[in-house]
Amino acid sequence: MSDVAPAWIAVDWGTSNLRAWAIAGDGQVLAEAVSDEGMGKLSREGFEPALLRLIGPWLAGKAPVVACGMVGSRQGWCEAPYRTVPCTPLDIAGQVMAPTTDPRLRVSIAPGLKQTSPADVMRGEETQIAGALRLLPGYDGVLCLPGTHSKWVHISAGEVVSFQTFMTGEMFALLSEASVLRHGMQGEGWNDAAFDAAVSDALSRPERLGARLFSLRAEGLIAGLSPQAARARLSGLLIGTELAAAKPYWLGQRVTLIGAEKLSAAYARALELQGIEAHRLNATDCTLAGLASLFPQTEGAR
Amino acid sequence: MSDVAPAWIAVDWGTSNLRAWAIAGDGQVLAEAVSDEGMGKLSREGFEPALLRLIGPWLAGKAPVVACGMVGSRQGWCEAPYRTVPCTPLDIAGQVMAPTTDPRLRVSIAPGLKQTSPADVMRGEETQIAGALRLLPGYDGVLCLPGTHSKWVHISAGEVVSFQTFMTGEMFALLSEASVLRHGMQGEGWNDAAFDAAVSDALSRPERLGARLFSLRAEGLIAGLSPQAARARLSGLLIGTELAAAKPYWLGQRVTLIGAEKLSAAYARALELQGIEAHRLNATDCTLAGLASLFPQTEGAR
Repeated sequence: MSDVAPAWIAVDWGTSNLRAWAIAGDGQVLAEAVSDEGMGKLSREGFEPALLRLIGPWLAGKAPVVACGMVGSRQGWCEAPYRTVPCTPLDIAGQVMAPTTDPRLRVSIAPGLKQTSPADVMRGEETQIAGALRLLPGYDGVLCLPGTHSKWVHISAGEVVSFQTFMTGEMFALLSEASVLRHGMQGEGWNDAAFDAAVSDALSRPERLGARLFSLRAEGLIAGLSPQAARARLSGLLIGTELAAAKPYWLGQRVTLIGAEKLSAAYARALELQGIEAHRLNATDCTLAGLASLFPQTEGAR
Repeated sequence: MSDVAPAWIAVDWGTSNLRAWAIAGDGQVLAEAVSDEGMGKLSREGFEPALLRLIGPWLAGKAPVVACGMVGSRQGWCEAPYRTVPCTPLDIAGQVMAPTTDPRLRVSIAPGLKQTSPADVMRGEETQIAGALRLLPGYDGVLCLPGTHSKWVHISAGEVVSFQTFMTGEMFALLSEASVLRHGMQGEGWNDAAFDAAVSDALSRPERLGARLFSLRAEGLIAGLSPQAARARLSGLLIGTELAAAKPYWLGQRVTLIGAEKLSAAYARALELQGIEAHRLNATDCTLAGLASLFPQTEGAR
């Protein structure tokens, strides 16, 4: 690792994880590193040591670090105040320099976005959005970023016009791991037919979500519902309910999904059931392309 | 305590708690005891010792024990198989005797109820329902039992005709204590206006629940939403969404609420906003009246 000499270092620092990439001048990824020292585990003085533990071996040439994510929140290393939509997803001038003591470190943090009404916020996704717009130049339409907090984003003329966040991923995690439903959905199994039926069901009667959840438990107890079908049905109910509320974002729109492989596949399948052929981008590709758009200016500020 | 000589002992043994009452022949409560040795913490051989620790001092006269709740589930002390609705809420013949080794102990467990389609189950609430029907003789209408898993129950001619379970209480606990929303709702504060607005909002557009949840977090971050208003709004959104799906149960119906004081008050308020004047019964009164309806027969089986 000690002979890695990047031109700059890309960092995606979320609540749970810290990921870093050593990037060459031509954009090639030279090395990658990840740790579980996410923002949620660190006090303010813990950020610099955590970063040095992960990327210390790459710092001989004093490569600048460009970071995005919850590291820029009020509880993070150093607050990078939200920019307000409508606006471009990233702006060099909005970056904030983190306070550092190690002379090899120069760390800039990208700000998130906020929307005044309806109130909404994002941190980290704005960088993926900026990256997506570099990968799909001139894109007009909708971006959907499935995840713990899924975002639907309306893009026009290179700007984020509006967006909306859904807690679908966090609800799935809580219900499948921490609620009474966990008893009936052990393992990683899946059942496409159960997923499809649940998506359609939720889309046609979204107001009945609350009533449908407990039936997963009851059918497990008295009707032999399998754990695979229960998991897939829970996912379908939650994604279908999200699609019902997000309909203005996807109905008759060009839609591109940015997210983890399996989760994006589930959203793509649910959208296909509604006749929407969604394009898909890899989330890491988007993060790196977004951070790269901030690098030249970081460099110029030397 | 050792001079308590009950005619019988009532036990409500749920997932989290074990509660017992020493009852005199005339129905008077002589003593009450509670422990946190709920079903969820006990292996099969742990039930008898847990019960003896709590009610040992009352057993000199070998008073019989009549129990209800999750103690009768498959993971409990001894399974009391579900009875199928439509049926009376309790039936003496459905009781199961728990296996015991202490000669002073005689423990019968009440069975729960199941509904085949849509699949649903209850354990413990059937006893409160039986109690409510003793306290309100000839009752025809709807019972609502708010709680971790709220139940709406249609009663006619002394029978449970149908019922439906909502995970509203568990969702509130998960979202307010374990999700990202917890940051914005510390404390026990409340705000009636925020609750009322959220109930109306959820009832008129229930399909938008998923979109409204994250706005609690966003408004906390960028619009100064107070923890009291956030807590009350989360409660109002979840209860309003439940009311939207449970509408066939309460619209134009006679409704009686059975539950904890504060939670029942919130449901009563939400129903009143819809023009429904709900009657209220104390949950413990209902549990004891229901268990009492099983006592004479337990006695006769000596």
